[in-house]
Amino acid sequence: MRILVFGTYILPITSPPIEDGGVLIEDGIIQKVGQRSELDQEEADLVVDGNLIVMPGLVNTHTHAAMVGFRGLADDLPLMEWLEKHIWPMEREMVTPTFIRHGVKLAMMEMIRGGTTTFADMYFFQRDAAQVVDRMGMRAVLAEGVIDFPAPANPDPESQLAYTESFIREWLNHPLIIPAVGPHAPYSTSPDVYRRAHALSERYGVPLLTHVVETQAEIQQIQERYGKTPVEHLANLGVLDERTVAAHMVWVTEKDMDLVEQYRIGIAHCPESNLKLASGVAPVPAYLRRGLKVGLATDGATSNNDLDMVGEMRTAALLHKGHQQDPTVATAEQVLWMATLGGAQVLGLSDRIGSLEPGKEADLITLDLDAAHLTPIYNPISHVVYAAKASDVRDVFVRGNPLLLDGEFQTLDPEEVITTFRQEVEAPIRQKAGQ
Amino acid sequence: MRILVFGTYILPITSPPIEDGGVLIEDGIIQKVGQRSELDQEEADLVVDGNLIVMPGLVNTHTHAAMVGFRGLADDLPLMEWLEKHIWPMEREMVTPTFIRHGVKLAMMEMIRGGTTTFADMYFFQRDAAQVVDRMGMRAVLAEGVIDFPAPANPDPESQLAYTESFIREWLNHPLIIPAVGPHAPYSTSPDVYRRAHALSERYGVPLLTHVVETQAEIQQIQERYGKTPVEHLANLGVLDERTVAAHMVWVTEKDMDLVEQYRIGIAHCPESNLKLASGVAPVPAYLRRGLKVGLATDGATSNNDLDMVGEMRTAALLHKGHQQDPTVATAEQVLWMATLGGAQVLGLSDRIGSLEPGKEADLITLDLDAAHLTPIYNPISHVVYAAKASDVRDVFVRGNPLLLDGEFQTLDPEEVITTFRQEVEAPIRQKAGQ
Repeated sequence: MRILVFGTYILPITSPPIEDGGVLIEDGIIQKVGQRSELDQEEADLVVDGNLIVMPGLVNTHTHAAMVGFRGLADDLPLMEWLEKHIWPMEREMVTPTFIRHGVKLAMMEMIRGGTTTFADMYFFQRDAAQVVDRMGMRAVLAEGVIDFPAPANPDPESQLAYTESFIREWLNHPLIIPAVGPHAPYSTSPDVYRRAHALSERYGVPLLTHVVETQAEIQQIQERYGKTPVEHLANLGVLDERTVAAHMVWVTEKDMDLVEQYRIGIAHCPESNLKLASGVAPVPAYLRRGLKVGLATDGATSNNDLDMVGEMRTAALLHKGHQQDPTVATAEQVLWMATLGGAQVLGLSDRIGSLEPGKEADLITLDLDAAHLTPIYNPISHVVYAAKASDVRDVFVRGNPLLLDGEFQTLDPEEVITTFRQEVEAPIRQKAGQ
Repeated sequence: MRILVFGTYILPITSPPIEDGGVLIEDGIIQKVGQRSELDQEEADLVVDGNLIVMPGLVNTHTHAAMVGFRGLADDLPLMEWLEKHIWPMEREMVTPTFIRHGVKLAMMEMIRGGTTTFADMYFFQRDAAQVVDRMGMRAVLAEGVIDFPAPANPDPESQLAYTESFIREWLNHPLIIPAVGPHAPYSTSPDVYRRAHALSERYGVPLLTHVVETQAEIQQIQERYGKTPVEHLANLGVLDERTVAAHMVWVTEKDMDLVEQYRIGIAHCPESNLKLASGVAPVPAYLRRGLKVGLATDGATSNNDLDMVGEMRTAALLHKGHQQDPTVATAEQVLWMATLGGAQVLGLSDRIGSLEPGKEADLITLDLDAAHLTPIYNPISHVVYAAKASDVRDVFVRGNPLLLDGEFQTLDPEEVITTFRQEVEAPIRQKAGQ
């Protein structure tokens, strides 16, 4: 299958924008990226063309996809009240394989519509999630949650780790799905469990997804328990390496950043979730100055409340300027890099995706420029970050497979996804919530 | 003309949401708001129905609409470099009646598409702007900029004030357009000019739009020049009253807030612009605690870069939680109020618009709930603020006139607006910018 995608601007990420250019894809792999004149003699089975920006698909480095089921259930609350009175009780009762299957499907519908092609997910029943992801054709890193408390799928770390290992074995050689290990966080996962989770990550060469210093309270807890910062604690356990994907990383010391650099950890930055839960603002400009691996992420839809990576770029670019009182930090170029190649680096996928270069797998999207809010256009990178919206996404390809063409879903029936979700997930939750 | 608008949720703002309700409009005025069963026997010339949220149109309390012409021309720059090297030189050469007419038209296309029904504008050649606004059917408060420097339309404050007065006389009794006075800011407009501008506002009973304490630098300047804070300075000049619309209000003292309360000034809060230019974060939770009049605003598209009030709500709700490190401030309810009735109060229009109540003029919008990112729905107010997007807006009415029906513009031809704008505005600017 040969595909040609032409646009007014091609954004390869690793090189400057190309005006009036195109991308040639063959059997899922990018063959050529160049001017239209270099490509328009090529034959193709499918040609996409228009007043478009063509760019790599967006990489969401940290989410809990199925939590869309609880979107908007409880907002504007103090963190512990939100978790203890709303989220955790609902999770304990409502998170079943059915919830996961319909939730992940709905989440993917939202993500594809908004130009996300890869997501890294920490949640439960990932065996069920993987089957749904496989059918929809998205790329995903999926980690079963490992935590010291009873979780919906498995009652204790022992069974969670066993589930994780068999899940990894089942999916290890899939072209799009990367099974991973998911110890929850330093405050909720014991040293022994962290070490065993890390051993699985090492043995199978898969990512280790975890939450690190989301809140200031976590620093105090870990200090009291281990006499270290959370990053020092994990380094001391020997569980940090280039496969670590640390979500949040809001409150860190210079020494923590040295450790991040030394162990080549990836950082999943969640600006909107951190704002909504009032967790703090991660020092992303400092991370970027140090040349660390930083990706963007939405976190789950309970603390966001969407899975919109286009919007997340905009929030990141605005937030750090305001926070640093410096309009020159978190530039459009830097933020676009975080949402694409930076995220691919964080997930260990930058040899395969994250930029438009010959030899890479063709995860790419187009944005339709024929809209009032994208007129005029002087700088396409500025437009992607500061003016574009998820709804501007027109076409989405993952490994050359079309998931969205001219705004139409190719691998799912949107009405069926929403209708089934309402029956199977929303209705029981409403009943339980007394609505 | 009788119109019925039914929806899954009606958000009257001044009373709790109504499930499965409707609004009856007659000759531009809201007659009834209630359950579907109370309304479905009514006859109507037009019926809008669906899985919709029905709510008041959004009120953008501070923008420079025609600046869409410079959208994305220069980003990520220090404030003075941005102004002095990019924005001001472009304005001096490019801002003409043609620029204004096509720019305001494009801006309104974006605003209508995103559910804004009223905007307050400070810019130049407002006589040209007013004609275009009148033809499109939006509601607008329009103030000609008055400033101590030569402006595009008029060379000095003298001629700007004369232009303002004749503009006010021409449009004073228009049903939708409210002419206003627009002294630029304490640092750029002399005391005498402020007083004369205020005299016009008083004489004709029209709003006075002005910028107040956008940056910390302004405080120092005004302190050096007048020995007062900017708010104290304006109070001392006698130019503050309930017709004052103060944009930004980022850096204020407790005494400044006392003055705001005493003079019943309205505040136009511009969170995204303040972030992008790294101006600071306005103390909106404190304003709300004091019960001040606070509206939301996008500012111009050069510092935003859109005119999207749905997105601005979301940014406001997230930003203040993060900034105050308190997830309970800037609730969805408060932010929705700011974007509707709060904004109407700021502009002196709350007896006519801002809520869905019998007797008010029918400025209302609908949002389509059949989208993945709006599924499930447990709380419609949370959804409007945290999950909805400008692209979800389906219908827009101003004083009962449909401007957007089922996503189709009723008073403009979108292709023509964009094509003409590209020829008449974008092409010359590109040429001038050397692109």
